[in-house]
Amino acid sequence: MDSSMMLANKQVVLKNYVEGYPKESDFEVRSSMISSHIPQRSKGLFVKNLYLACDPYMRHRMSHHISKDVPLLASFNPGFIKYTDVPLSYYAGILGMPGLAAYIGFNNLCSAKEGDVVYVSSAAGGVGQLVGQFAKMEGCYVVGSTSTDEKVHLLKSQLGFDDAFNYKQGNDLAGALKRHFPKGIDVYFENVGGNMLDEVLLHMNLNGRIAVSGMISQYNLKKPDGIHNLFCLISKRLRMEGFSELDFRHKVPEYLEFAIQLIREKKLLFVEDIAEGLENAASAFLVFIMGEMSESRSFKFQLTEKLKNLGENKKILCFKAIC
Amino acid sequence: MDSSMMLANKQVVLKNYVEGYPKESDFEVRSSMISSHIPQRSKGLFVKNLYLACDPYMRHRMSHHISKDVPLLASFNPGFIKYTDVPLSYYAGILGMPGLAAYIGFNNLCSAKEGDVVYVSSAAGGVGQLVGQFAKMEGCYVVGSTSTDEKVHLLKSQLGFDDAFNYKQGNDLAGALKRHFPKGIDVYFENVGGNMLDEVLLHMNLNGRIAVSGMISQYNLKKPDGIHNLFCLISKRLRMEGFSELDFRHKVPEYLEFAIQLIREKKLLFVEDIAEGLENAASAFLVFIMGEMSESRSFKFQLTEKLKNLGENKKILCFKAIC
Repeated sequence: MDSSMMLANKQVVLKNYVEGYPKESDFEVRSSMISSHIPQRSKGLFVKNLYLACDPYMRHRMSHHISKDVPLLASFNPGFIKYTDVPLSYYAGILGMPGLAAYIGFNNLCSAKEGDVVYVSSAAGGVGQLVGQFAKMEGCYVVGSTSTDEKVHLLKSQLGFDDAFNYKQGNDLAGALKRHFPKGIDVYFENVGGNMLDEVLLHMNLNGRIAVSGMISQYNLKKPDGIHNLFCLISKRLRMEGFSELDFRHKVPEYLEFAIQLIREKKLLFVEDIAEGLENAASAFLVFIMGEMSESRSFKFQLTEKLKNLGENKKILCFKAIC
Repeated sequence: MDSSMMLANKQVVLKNYVEGYPKESDFEVRSSMISSHIPQRSKGLFVKNLYLACDPYMRHRMSHHISKDVPLLASFNPGFIKYTDVPLSYYAGILGMPGLAAYIGFNNLCSAKEGDVVYVSSAAGGVGQLVGQFAKMEGCYVVGSTSTDEKVHLLKSQLGFDDAFNYKQGNDLAGALKRHFPKGIDVYFENVGGNMLDEVLLHMNLNGRIAVSGMISQYNLKKPDGIHNLFCLISKRLRMEGFSELDFRHKVPEYLEFAIQLIREKKLLFVEDIAEGLENAASAFLVFIMGEMSESRSFKFQLTEKLKNLGENKKILCFKAIC
């Protein structure tokens, strides 16, 4: 039986590689018709996107010199949706890439143990908020930084962080780190890069670990900021390690089993914001990036967009913008 | 029996903390008389220095902001001199700190395996020449960089390096790395820092390791160079780790046993230069540093000084200056 039919297909396309700050004209919304035909005996699937996740690393991949080197994001695997008693959007967040990144980064790279002082930058972001909660489960003392007082409150009152600060307040990062880490930092979960990393190096303790998950302060810069304090790697015997959750797709079942139980018991929370309309995706992304970036170069953010396609003509763009 | 007597004691003293390039007036040779008296029942020893090792990190410790943070070098342990069929000077070199640093750094941090491409900067230095030889024993492809064509020849003809290059030649570091590492770098043994590190990051392979032993291009700079390519830690999943052999003094017996056998079988070589006279130590150190540093900021060097005190009036300053 040939059930082939023509369907509307709407896309947000990157027209130009981006230098510096992205602008709306770098993107284009295109509509076309596609056939749903799948050849007989093919093992192919026809996929209907319900959610699209959009995370900070995407800005990085919009750069010309990067896009040639980085492999395409692995396709979404429908098999991942194992549990249906959670919002479907979770599979683009806590049960998707940000969740896996937090799980792998924290467990494989941080060597965190009870009593360790753990610092998470971009702590209210999709990855950061989970890392903080994982660190609390290990009995660590957890401090997060974020960009507004509201999010500082969120971290401390809802997400269980021991302490948090607004890195934009006071324009004295060194002083803030000194105040919030009187005993230094054992583990730094790096989402930010740039000046934050340079200052944190000076506040690390002997044998500290730095898990490098992202450097979101750097993605719009033509030339990344210079890091001057790497001698601390020797004098403090630090380990600094980058990773990508792309290498750990085989860990998804293990992570899902771990996370779903905690979610059901309300021991692991996830804060997300949702907005609608695929055709607004690019402008929403830009407003968010520009709004944050114009204030500070050592800015950090975490953004997840999700597209919910409820039918051919009704689309909901969901984005989470927590930082 | 009280065998106390007065003895001449000559010292090279650092008069001022050093900023930028050190100068001769930063040092002073002082002579005084000291008593050899050791109280009865004391377990103290009266130590007569036969050799003094002087390594690049010493310049780093001459800086004011550093000297407060870094613990004093552990005292020389006479028990280390277990084997007497090798030159005594070896205990300040291959069987001393540089040897242990190469052993620990290579074995604990590099995760090198057969076929890996290993790059050693400052490869003709006390640490570098040993790391290269250890890597060859593991079946790696080993490339070293150094500052003269003579030392390039030494590395390839005597020390078993597969390839070597003079990083000062041609003033095109990126091009040199591209030529000498057509398949990229799996392990970088870092002795240099600065611009070299920044370029090497771009040439590392996926899952590469960087063992950070020293950053000798940076020790005379008021502000260390900025490193711009740390995003490679994420995109290439790199691990970068600093260490100090000071933390591994308990490994000395294991290392000595490993090394002495290889030395006796002439499977592990050590190249050292010797010069005489403690009173000339500071000027020799300066001539060496200035001579190298004036040519290039991304310069590297390795220097070991040894003082041989053959009696109260006859002193021999020995220094090894290979880079």
